[in-house]
Amino acid sequence: MKHPMGIRKYKNIQTTYGNRGMDLEEEINLSNQYYLDRDIAVIYKKPTPITITKVDYPSRVEAVIKEAYFKTPSTTDYNGIYKGKYIDFEAKETTLKAFPLKNIHKHQIKHLEKITNHGGIGFLIVRFSKLNQTFYLSYEMLKKFITEEKRKSIPIDYFKEHAHIIKDTYQPRIDYLKIVDKYI
Amino acid sequence: MKHPMGIRKYKNIQTTYGNRGMDLEEEINLSNQYYLDRDIAVIYKKPTPITITKVDYPSRVEAVIKEAYFKTPSTTDYNGIYKGKYIDFEAKETTLKAFPLKNIHKHQIKHLEKITNHGGIGFLIVRFSKLNQTFYLSYEMLKKFITEEKRKSIPIDYFKEHAHIIKDTYQPRIDYLKIVDKYI
Repeated sequence: MKHPMGIRKYKNIQTTYGNRGMDLEEEINLSNQYYLDRDIAVIYKKPTPITITKVDYPSRVEAVIKEAYFKTPSTTDYNGIYKGKYIDFEAKETTLKAFPLKNIHKHQIKHLEKITNHGGIGFLIVRFSKLNQTFYLSYEMLKKFITEEKRKSIPIDYFKEHAHIIKDTYQPRIDYLKIVDKYI
Repeated sequence: MKHPMGIRKYKNIQTTYGNRGMDLEEEINLSNQYYLDRDIAVIYKKPTPITITKVDYPSRVEAVIKEAYFKTPSTTDYNGIYKGKYIDFEAKETTLKAFPLKNIHKHQIKHLEKITNHGGIGFLIVRFSKLNQTFYLSYEMLKKFITEEKRKSIPIDYFKEHAHIIKDTYQPRIDYLKIVDKYI
């Protein structure tokens, strides 16, 4: 089941994780841990924004949230610092052969715009999971598409032409900072 | 009731907000909104980190979290970008006349250390609520205290000598970027 707000990571809570491949989020988290352990960069995924409406305190040392709702995120999922630069990005997977723009909230695009205006490095990491290809799309190239095109999905050919392929590697899994280096 | 992990903002969920004064977190959030609206800086409070263990889907468009737990945060509460610089801080209030170091997790201090090593600006905002005084304590001065002193609380005199007073103003309420300017 896919949550309408694009929150999909809870869908498998009851299922076995055994043999499935890692999803993009897990690979990015592992890569960020790799960067952190080697003191290369300090980049984290932000917690999922929620509104808490009911908390139980069954004991003095434990609080249990009994009712809460997902909120629409105001910003992107990942941010941090690398080589003195503020880094900010959103990561998305699609099973389609074009990336639907509705997968990114309007205020997330606005957020990336502000970040780049203030001297930060803003981008998307997009994985076409059926083709097993992962791209780094700079905010500038995302904006170019939105400004110049009327289409509601970014075709993979646009990625091939205007984005950077992030090759699968062993450590880190998703070495996106190698691409960031081109923009510093 | 004060949550043992220092999470105190849910304690008043059932009470009236009517006449109480604003707490530090609310004032910082308003100040960040002020900075954002005027395109001065892009700084957000991160969502509270939780582990979700049970989600109900009463309808196709709505998900309700039915069970979740607070997690110890790995990082600080606030980060963002200002004048091209990565900004990272934690905000704490105390009713005491000294600031107990146990109010800051060890890994939050470690996080601020990493941030400053990578060229970011890391600090604490500490309010002594009974004295109605709010200070900006740079990570460097926090580290100096931890390194040189054996005491478990930072006395207010240390703040008066090594930190910057943040005056209450109308807009923004907590103009901490004025202090950040001294470090850029």
